Amino acid sequence: MEKNIADRLLSKIDEKKNPCIVGLDPRVEQIPEYLKADKKNYTNPFEAVRDTITEFNRLLIDALKDIVPAIKPQMAFFEQYGSAGVKAFEETVSYAKKNGLIVIEDAKRNDIGSTVRAYANGHLGEVAMLDDSRKPSFDADFLTVSPFLGSDSLTPFVEVCKEYGKGIFVLIKTSNPSSGEIQDQILAHKATVSEMLAAYVNKAGLDLVGERGYSSLGAVVGATYPEQAETLRKIMPRAIFLVPGYGAQGGTADEVTPCFNDDGYGALVNSSRGIIFAYQKEPYRSRYGPEEFHLAARDAAIDMRDDMVTALTKAGKLPKW
Amino acid sequence: MEKNIADRLLSKIDEKKNPCIVGLDPRVEQIPEYLKADKKNYTNPFEAVRDTITEFNRLLIDALKDIVPAIKPQMAFFEQYGSAGVKAFEETVSYAKKNGLIVIEDAKRNDIGSTVRAYANGHLGEVAMLDDSRKPSFDADFLTVSPFLGSDSLTPFVEVCKEYGKGIFVLIKTSNPSSGEIQDQILAHKATVSEMLAAYVNKAGLDLVGERGYSSLGAVVGATYPEQAETLRKIMPRAIFLVPGYGAQGGTADEVTPCFNDDGYGALVNSSRGIIFAYQKEPYRSRYGPEEFHLAARDAAIDMRDDMVTALTKAGKLPKW
Repeated sequence: MEKNIADRLLSKIDEKKNPCIVGLDPRVEQIPEYLKADKKNYTNPFEAVRDTITEFNRLLIDALKDIVPAIKPQMAFFEQYGSAGVKAFEETVSYAKKNGLIVIEDAKRNDIGSTVRAYANGHLGEVAMLDDSRKPSFDADFLTVSPFLGSDSLTPFVEVCKEYGKGIFVLIKTSNPSSGEIQDQILAHKATVSEMLAAYVNKAGLDLVGERGYSSLGAVVGATYPEQAETLRKIMPRAIFLVPGYGAQGGTADEVTPCFNDDGYGALVNSSRGIIFAYQKEPYRSRYGPEEFHLAARDAAIDMRDDMVTALTKAGKLPKW
Repeated sequence: MEKNIADRLLSKIDEKKNPCIVGLDPRVEQIPEYLKADKKNYTNPFEAVRDTITEFNRLLIDALKDIVPAIKPQMAFFEQYGSAGVKAFEETVSYAKKNGLIVIEDAKRNDIGSTVRAYANGHLGEVAMLDDSRKPSFDADFLTVSPFLGSDSLTPFVEVCKEYGKGIFVLIKTSNPSSGEIQDQILAHKATVSEMLAAYVNKAGLDLVGERGYSSLGAVVGATYPEQAETLRKIMPRAIFLVPGYGAQGGTADEVTPCFNDDGYGALVNSSRGIIFAYQKEPYRSRYGPEEFHLAARDAAIDMRDDMVTALTKAGKLPKW
């Protein structure tokens, strides 16, 4: 087994002095026109999109690699373009890793156990070739997974994490408005669905705790529900929380601090649209044109880091950097 | 909007006199050796897998197209090979549609609303090109989706179904052993999570009911839980149930009959491994060698159809064919 990925992630957070990450959601309609111009004459329009997304992401990675510990590509925005989009995803993962970034693939996969093993092998582990040898495929560092099918649908992910030194983030309390319809339901024994799942993550994650005290089995907990984050933090003391919902979805830095432990670790705060398309909004739009979108993203990522460091300082939770 | 896909599916069921479908789970380790031999000298081993999977599926489709109304490719077994695997998926979908089969993509996607729209566009609708025109991508007829994030994560799928005449199957009660951990939980108002979700599917599906009385908004209900199927059938009278779990997972034809309405419609029974790899098991192994795996699959599909017709006759639920 390779070095524990939770330990590697914490080292990257220390190196960048930043628990904030950037989500790569390459919405083609919002990618600056100048990146599209030379690709519009391609014979295959899907290949034109593939190369546009790849170039957009490379420029972002170049501009962000000394600021953030990790990036979180959202598979939906790649996969919607079929094999061409997935090719752009592979290029993005490979380029981010080459540039020292941890890659958190946001794909929210789940299925019955024998099928989940294929997802786990493909996204995190190795897959069988025709001659029975095995090769890595996507080779992401972390994958987000949904728990709807229950624990036997998560076990193969946990096994692959152990075998290949990878990690997962299990959806526990998502950031969207209707997340409570299932996740907040109160069960016969008084806990909510989220709390029950949190107890599972805590227990199953014990085998994957690294030298720094955090597990490679993490949890997705939305920034938009701070009270629940506080409860969930207590149930899962060793889990790293992947926290979506900051920025565009309305979560503030102060609302995110309950996701952190007192040692200043235990959460990764994500922003996607708010960073990668910062060039379309003030104050960045006045500073940079569309051809400098990556510089706008860099400024926005620095502002987010500073915002989070201020909130953590106020909460008495800043690590000893 | 195109012709209602539920109506098209029912027509295909009548045409084949068969409510059973075949799941395409191309597990490379189980694909007959003779299909691999000429591809082992490829420079790129992922392309070798791509062509092997594509050829395997084409032979199955040729052998099954006059027997079954639909096929259900399981995305995990393609996607694990990255863009090469997704290419094989695209080829499979295209070949199946060309041969008159309805394609049910089993991918269990879900995310927050703004992201789910990308999945819905890519798998069922159309995606934006660089020049702002829109083109179909995967273009499946149906997609399986998970409801874990709540109703706002399902609405974009429903919208795309309306717009493009497509359908979805929402996971309600899955076939695996631990499905009850979330799905069977009893909520404060006494219904289970599955029953609450079923009420949503019933209501949201009313707008998508076709001339035959069935909705394009269907439900996944496992063959392994017949008592629950009976209750869920009452909550969702107009939903078509996609029923996994027959065969390899232990569900019998008699256990599946509660998924059907009294008119003999309303369920699609799936078998994957039990059909496509029938050549590895008796009684088919004695009849056919590995190079006739598609004939073994055809025999197994005919046996499954006959088994289901017998059970439906016994239950007084055979349509007037």
